[in-house]
Amino acid sequence: MGRWEPNARGRLEQAALELYIERGFDQTTVAEIAMRAGLTERTFFRHFADKREVLFGGASMLQEFLVGAVAGAPASAAPIDAIARALQTVGAQFDERRDSVRQRQTVIVANTELRERELIKLASLAAAMAEALRGRGVTDPAAGLAAEAGIAVFRIAFERWIDDTDQRDLSHHIRESLAELKALTAGASSHGVREGLGQVPT
Amino acid sequence: MGRWEPNARGRLEQAALELYIERGFDQTTVAEIAMRAGLTERTFFRHFADKREVLFGGASMLQEFLVGAVAGAPASAAPIDAIARALQTVGAQFDERRDSVRQRQTVIVANTELRERELIKLASLAAAMAEALRGRGVTDPAAGLAAEAGIAVFRIAFERWIDDTDQRDLSHHIRESLAELKALTAGASSHGVREGLGQVPT
Repeated sequence: MGRWEPNARGRLEQAALELYIERGFDQTTVAEIAMRAGLTERTFFRHFADKREVLFGGASMLQEFLVGAVAGAPASAAPIDAIARALQTVGAQFDERRDSVRQRQTVIVANTELRERELIKLASLAAAMAEALRGRGVTDPAAGLAAEAGIAVFRIAFERWIDDTDQRDLSHHIRESLAELKALTAGASSHGVREGLGQVPT
Repeated sequence: MGRWEPNARGRLEQAALELYIERGFDQTTVAEIAMRAGLTERTFFRHFADKREVLFGGASMLQEFLVGAVAGAPASAAPIDAIARALQTVGAQFDERRDSVRQRQTVIVANTELRERELIKLASLAAAMAEALRGRGVTDPAAGLAAEAGIAVFRIAFERWIDDTDQRDLSHHIRESLAELKALTAGASSHGVREGLGQVPT
């Protein structure tokens, strides 16, 4: 084989996802991933620092992208709209590679450590989007809340997209989840909330 | 010293928090905590499995409490109200021990691993509250969204409570953050959200 391997990164990623699903993440070695991809371990390490980076290597690009999308939303966009637009554009990208995103999710869900890493990634994305909103002049607590609520909407929409037998777009589920959150919070009774204080149900 | 130590658990907790703040979590040993509390290591290990459990030992009780509060909310309470009530009652407990909760937060914020553990704890609380809502007959995505949004509100309220020089109650900040989330989502333009699709800002 020559030094130049066509689409080595993509082939390694696909081989890794298959093996993580077949054998489990912990049971898979870099040597096995390289062999499945028809490449060498050395080539693997030219593309990924370790086998976990196959799953999380895209996180910093995703963050840059979301931050750019929030910053680039029209000046007139409300905070939650700037967040929603950013998530929608990510959603469109996920739709384009639905199969590998689903495979990745299967791997993550099956492993406690990876689930925790994914949570930390999402929290970092929320923090970065909140910061991008502050850069647009949005004050706290609105900036933090809009970003956290956006990530909550995205997580729920993502789960529904993964399970959607009708294969509707992720953007469809994001719209639906945002509408649902709006309906939920609109239903909050300030009376009920105040009543809660000090009443400890047993 | 006799075998029975008055309030050993509380003394160990206080000694641990002080040392974690003074020296850092990683640099503190169980032996030092026991010495500061005027107790033995053996006594420490009767109360805590390790030095991290001093910070996270209350998580399962907190979860049981929140789940009980959600389950015990009046049948007429809207999902977000059931969550808000549960958080309010926890808030009242935090207010009663404001100093140690603040000390704990200082320790958590200073250490990456502890911050990650705290995130995972909050995600578990959201999942447990979502399950409690399902037990009340709330369907998805409402159950998951209400719980996630509730945790987002709680996190923001908690941060503001920690920084509040006026020392207002945590329940005050929870009410305020929930109202803010309501205002934010009410401002979401479904038009703006749809427009977002496919427009990748650069």
